[in-house]
Amino acid sequence: MSVPEAKPAPLFDKLALIGIGLIGSSIALAAKREGLVRTVVAATRSQATADTANRLGIVDHCGTDLAAAVKDADLVIVCTPVGACGENMRVIAPNMKPGAIVSDVGSVKQAVIRDMRPHVPAGVHFVPAHPIAGTEHSGPEAGFPDLFKGRWCIVTPLEGVDRAAADRLAEFWRGCGSMVEFMAPDWHDKVLGIVSHLPHLIAYTIVGTADDMAGEQRSEVIKFAAGGFRDFTRIAASDPTMWRDVFLNNREAVLEILARFQEDLFYLQRAIRWGEGDKLFEIFERTRGIRRALLDMKQA
Amino acid sequence: MSVPEAKPAPLFDKLALIGIGLIGSSIALAAKREGLVRTVVAATRSQATADTANRLGIVDHCGTDLAAAVKDADLVIVCTPVGACGENMRVIAPNMKPGAIVSDVGSVKQAVIRDMRPHVPAGVHFVPAHPIAGTEHSGPEAGFPDLFKGRWCIVTPLEGVDRAAADRLAEFWRGCGSMVEFMAPDWHDKVLGIVSHLPHLIAYTIVGTADDMAGEQRSEVIKFAAGGFRDFTRIAASDPTMWRDVFLNNREAVLEILARFQEDLFYLQRAIRWGEGDKLFEIFERTRGIRRALLDMKQA
Repeated sequence: MSVPEAKPAPLFDKLALIGIGLIGSSIALAAKREGLVRTVVAATRSQATADTANRLGIVDHCGTDLAAAVKDADLVIVCTPVGACGENMRVIAPNMKPGAIVSDVGSVKQAVIRDMRPHVPAGVHFVPAHPIAGTEHSGPEAGFPDLFKGRWCIVTPLEGVDRAAADRLAEFWRGCGSMVEFMAPDWHDKVLGIVSHLPHLIAYTIVGTADDMAGEQRSEVIKFAAGGFRDFTRIAASDPTMWRDVFLNNREAVLEILARFQEDLFYLQRAIRWGEGDKLFEIFERTRGIRRALLDMKQA
Repeated sequence: MSVPEAKPAPLFDKLALIGIGLIGSSIALAAKREGLVRTVVAATRSQATADTANRLGIVDHCGTDLAAAVKDADLVIVCTPVGACGENMRVIAPNMKPGAIVSDVGSVKQAVIRDMRPHVPAGVHFVPAHPIAGTEHSGPEAGFPDLFKGRWCIVTPLEGVDRAAADRLAEFWRGCGSMVEFMAPDWHDKVLGIVSHLPHLIAYTIVGTADDMAGEQRSEVIKFAAGGFRDFTRIAASDPTMWRDVFLNNREAVLEILARFQEDLFYLQRAIRWGEGDKLFEIFERTRGIRRALLDMKQA
């Protein structure tokens, strides 16, 4: 028989979450289970959402007063859609404890930094971060403590920020089960534009195209979705507010990669029209390589 | 204790498979396990593939003489890429037994019918079919008997064909675990263009676009693929020959749906450029509905 391992001392005394959707509630559940914090409170603008969070016991308390929630917190994580981060930072700023860390979970980093940084009070450490994790479900009921397990969390510390604060936040995310990577905000936005934003945009488009089909054809699409389409519907069921904000706030990187994608798609379209099988084969053969590389990295 | 259920008499005495890749080998394994046939032989043009099939014991015998394999067979299924179906039918035609059924598994129906029908001897029943099942793996080693379990098989009987022959083929596919649907060939090609061919084309394109990225960016794409991109890589790892033939042989339907997709994508692209969040939200919200419909049908 082995002696149960003693849990390390909590990294933070009080964690405050602004927003308690899929990500916020999963952070709360993971942080409590792993003993990363002593107390975790949350605030959301919606009374109904707060009621749900309290009923489910996801946090010690969830209210609707954002500024009140951050009082005495030594870690504050803004878990709202990207478009609301700046305004939320403005609201909570006056109540933030000197020496505390404030972070976010946005899928876009440059725009969030642009919006939040002007409101961060002196003496508070702003360390933006992005856990690359999610499901197609939203709201506090959707959260679960293993959401971040084995997934990347990208931390994008700003120039001049206290390195110890960034390291403590990284430690927190590792405690939630994540693998942490440091990255510059602009590079993050470019990479995520390719691996996440473009695939979501494409999935939304193709499912929308199918949804526009007339009656009988649409029901056949649903019936026979197993042919590849199904994978797209899962992606295209993701939270619409979150994704609207992502595209509005990572416009340049998305438009740039989208232009390349369009070019490549027209190249294939033309090859189909002209019956150029060799061009199709060459690309279809080549794309197997990236899957192999993924499998080698155990990402698939 | 229950008495083991007696297996029904085989539906066919001898099954001959032309081609023994993922689909052919899975048919052989399912047909044998379920006692649907007494004997199953196969033939493939590649000696190496035949050797593999024999070594794995997937069929009673696999050779490289296509015409020899179909002798005395009362069911012949051509399991080669769509582009080779016509020529294979021409080669096996002289040896086909009167009264036998010949079918295929092509993802495209109109072109396969155009290519195969002229060679089908009088007295042989040609019943085209398409099992909507597959994985990203190819070759006889990739086959497994449960591939068709719970998946659709679309049978597209031609006008004037013996209805009993179509029903027997449908019975065979049900025996392999499939759900069978009868459909007109042109309608099949339209529906599959949407649920399968377009998604594959898009996945191939996006993975190709990422693959073209310069060094560091490409390795980051692989590293952080979990953000949505991963689902596309699986689809884009499918057999290149099969998919080349699909696009060359379902050109009209694919180009038509692709044009609609392009229009829709440009609409979203423009909305991103002009910051029209309401348009993005409306589409992102709407696409959730089709996922719900899918879940209701237990397809997801």
